[in-house]
Amino acid sequence: MASDKPARRPRAETPKGFRDYFGAEVTERKAMLDAIAGVYHRYGFDPLETSAVETVEALGKFLPDVDRPNEGVFAWQEDDDWLALRYDLTAPLARVAAQYRNDLPSPYRRYAMGPVWRNEKPGPGRFRQFYQCDADTVGSSSVAADAEICAMLADALEEVGIEKGDYLIKVNNRKVLNGVMEVAGLAGEDKHDERGIVLRAIDKLDRLGPVGVRALLREGRMDESGDFTKGAGLTEEQAEVVMAFVDAPRLIDQHLIDLEAKYPDEPDKVLALIRQARDAGDSYASKGIALPSKAFEARNGVTLRYLDRLVGETQIGAQGVAELTEISELLAAQDYKADRIRIDPGVVRGLAYYTGPVFEAELTFQITDEKGRPRNFGSVAGGGRYDDLVKRFTGQEVPATGVSIGVDRLLAALQAKGRGAADTAGPVVVTVMDRDRMADYMAMAAELRWAGIRAEVYLGNPRSFGNQLKYADKRASPVAVIMGGDEVARGTVILKDLILGAKIAQNATLEEWKDQPAQVEVPRAGLVAAVREMLAR
Amino acid sequence: MASDKPARRPRAETPKGFRDYFGAEVTERKAMLDAIAGVYHRYGFDPLETSAVETVEALGKFLPDVDRPNEGVFAWQEDDDWLALRYDLTAPLARVAAQYRNDLPSPYRRYAMGPVWRNEKPGPGRFRQFYQCDADTVGSSSVAADAEICAMLADALEEVGIEKGDYLIKVNNRKVLNGVMEVAGLAGEDKHDERGIVLRAIDKLDRLGPVGVRALLREGRMDESGDFTKGAGLTEEQAEVVMAFVDAPRLIDQHLIDLEAKYPDEPDKVLALIRQARDAGDSYASKGIALPSKAFEARNGVTLRYLDRLVGETQIGAQGVAELTEISELLAAQDYKADRIRIDPGVVRGLAYYTGPVFEAELTFQITDEKGRPRNFGSVAGGGRYDDLVKRFTGQEVPATGVSIGVDRLLAALQAKGRGAADTAGPVVVTVMDRDRMADYMAMAAELRWAGIRAEVYLGNPRSFGNQLKYADKRASPVAVIMGGDEVARGTVILKDLILGAKIAQNATLEEWKDQPAQVEVPRAGLVAAVREMLAR
Repeated sequence: MASDKPARRPRAETPKGFRDYFGAEVTERKAMLDAIAGVYHRYGFDPLETSAVETVEALGKFLPDVDRPNEGVFAWQEDDDWLALRYDLTAPLARVAAQYRNDLPSPYRRYAMGPVWRNEKPGPGRFRQFYQCDADTVGSSSVAADAEICAMLADALEEVGIEKGDYLIKVNNRKVLNGVMEVAGLAGEDKHDERGIVLRAIDKLDRLGPVGVRALLREGRMDESGDFTKGAGLTEEQAEVVMAFVDAPRLIDQHLIDLEAKYPDEPDKVLALIRQARDAGDSYASKGIALPSKAFEARNGVTLRYLDRLVGETQIGAQGVAELTEISELLAAQDYKADRIRIDPGVVRGLAYYTGPVFEAELTFQITDEKGRPRNFGSVAGGGRYDDLVKRFTGQEVPATGVSIGVDRLLAALQAKGRGAADTAGPVVVTVMDRDRMADYMAMAAELRWAGIRAEVYLGNPRSFGNQLKYADKRASPVAVIMGGDEVARGTVILKDLILGAKIAQNATLEEWKDQPAQVEVPRAGLVAAVREMLAR
Repeated sequence: MASDKPARRPRAETPKGFRDYFGAEVTERKAMLDAIAGVYHRYGFDPLETSAVETVEALGKFLPDVDRPNEGVFAWQEDDDWLALRYDLTAPLARVAAQYRNDLPSPYRRYAMGPVWRNEKPGPGRFRQFYQCDADTVGSSSVAADAEICAMLADALEEVGIEKGDYLIKVNNRKVLNGVMEVAGLAGEDKHDERGIVLRAIDKLDRLGPVGVRALLREGRMDESGDFTKGAGLTEEQAEVVMAFVDAPRLIDQHLIDLEAKYPDEPDKVLALIRQARDAGDSYASKGIALPSKAFEARNGVTLRYLDRLVGETQIGAQGVAELTEISELLAAQDYKADRIRIDPGVVRGLAYYTGPVFEAELTFQITDEKGRPRNFGSVAGGGRYDDLVKRFTGQEVPATGVSIGVDRLLAALQAKGRGAADTAGPVVVTVMDRDRMADYMAMAAELRWAGIRAEVYLGNPRSFGNQLKYADKRASPVAVIMGGDEVARGTVILKDLILGAKIAQNATLEEWKDQPAQVEVPRAGLVAAVREMLAR
């Protein structure tokens, strides 16, 4: 019904949990994604852009069981269907791989970049729309596909400005963990709950340390607040098997560190000793490339030998170790050694979801948190092999592996490293001294643009020149162009170097500033050359 | 309730009215938008990326009056709020301009590119998610802002590959039409319905021609099927006033054409005669730049004189003509003449929405439609001044002007012109002759990539070599790399030029093809150089 009552004014607010991105926030992310896309392209991956909207049926996992699906997705009903915003880029890939299975090349390498939506309670720094950047290979069961994803991830990180030594790609295999579970007597269907507790305990290693994890493997653990978490009820012997696995990275580091401490000036000897300790030779690991420590070269070999011992006679465990060995060899053949890509049994991310190799990219440099304390930057990407992708739709198993980069986290890392790549310089501002000369001002801005210089005319009310300079300041403008009647009469323009001006102004009054060389008068015909010179300072 | 009945398999289908974009479809659009963003950046415009989701209240216009808002937007309820997907990029800009009014520079120049959603019945070539690419200036009442948008639009079209002469940016002013309406006696509040019919009639000029429009201005019009559309009921005299306006472009063209026919070899004389006919001199229109016809230089002047006559003594009409004159002069000062940006009273797009200048970019070259008939490509962008943008939120009037490029249409135009800019070359495919040499194959692909060459290893089941070549074909691969035991023994690799091979194959049997020079054997160490040479052909 139409009403004559004046409507309440709408609130000008971003919806809760969403945010707006301005200027450099947009261009810096774009520059980063463009660089990553360049790497993906070079690896033969093709872009895929699906729509934001999918049927809830195709998305799966979130099917409505009451009036509307409200677990995790934004959804709405249309006729008999429920539609929803995609919550990741993998579910749409599964749908596409099934829908176009007769037309797509097989294997199908694709990358996708774009926003996804989560209907979750928003929190600080936690948004309901955020970017993902995925690359997946669908239709290859070869671990060469997993190795390729790891190499590509390393290249992508280096391409955006994370240097060698500042990141580590950790690789594990779900099958190795299954083998360890079997050795610990946790293999049967009746041990489902215990395995769940063990997985969650391992995932807390970073936070609780080995003592805390061990407590959770046994009877349980009381935290500082006095709350008790029930454990998996493993025996001391069972817990020892799992802990040896969990603790492997530290043990291996210790092994290397011990040897290096013993023979500080003999990296070749350390290498030889570690090699001696290996059962099988690594045919690619001995190219003698310069590494931070030569000992790193053998590190993946040491780890694999150790894992092989841990999984004992179990078939699944042995298969897992063999796959990791092959991945390690394939990567070493391309010069990705343990200083960049490392076999690490400590990686247990999303293990419920993955069926084989899993990987995670960790940034190893420290940053300062909001309270001034140093902390490790941590994970920026993760992925693995998941072989039930297309099966939901077609009934046929289709092997797949892929990685997802946390776009916001990686961007924050680049900013922490001072590597915001985008051109964030403001435009040259042509000020308006005389409303009647607007055509001349616009022609000057056009000339500057023709020369490739970012430039604009002040288009607000020109009455107050102070407002024009405040505007130029807000725009981070490097140069202001001024032309009044006097300048026209002399055939000149005045250029103000606003960057130099701001520096001088910090130590001078406005009156002094006027006489500084931050301001020059140049012939009108020399405008472009003079601005270019000022920008080059 | 959980059920043990096995679930029906989900359908692998894009939701109705949505589509997926693959490979070059993504990269070509991206290349075009990147080029446009470069122009916008140069003009001092900053990117803004709002989220896909807005409150229905902020979007406005689509507020729910029954159970759910279903007019045009995808919407859903959350607690007490309705949320919706944005249906354009202007409504979010209005919200941002109000929300951040104390922080944004004023005037605020921003551009935005991204998908928008319309909950409409999908049709052929009509999708419910599509891209828009907008640039707007908020907070400037100066027509210099409108002129700048027009110049920037011309630059953007040229930047993506639409050459001078292949496009025309037509500029009109809502106020001129209001003046004409007043002259025709259609100004009062009681004439609201008649004005609506007149507007819709003018908008049909392209389809119905002057005779059809005139019929709609008078009693009405019967179409071929016998259906009758009621007219505005204007008198012959009133209709004549409106028709003179509607017909202006043709009349002006005729005027120029007549003079040029009379003095075919004397363009300067034509120019002089047209200038003579003008009331006021155009201080910028005489720089003597080479134009398709010198007469074009005066065209905007002729049009303005004509419009000035049409709007008579009406205040609003005179203001409209004055604004158009200023726009024309500002543009001429930057060398945008009537061959690129033309005053054209025939543009009436979305007039209900706009309050001042309106503009439209038309591509003037012909394409062939699906039935092989030539037709004009038509409009690819439009915009204008709309001064009630932020007022909804704050109560204060904030002047704004902007343009929206129809991304899909412009992309189609570029493709019609053969200007799909993106690099769509497939990767070099390293085939797998021997599963045990996978590390060597991956190392070759890595070497190629280090040299900047797009390359990948075949990761499907390598048993059938024919399948590998079929795969390379599907990937549009230019070169296949082959290395079996024989080649390893000789220290060589074989390169197949698949582009040349395909050409030869069209005129030869497979047996003959094998002996063609499309296949070469090169030393393994010379792989990169040989591939590069083959790609350079």
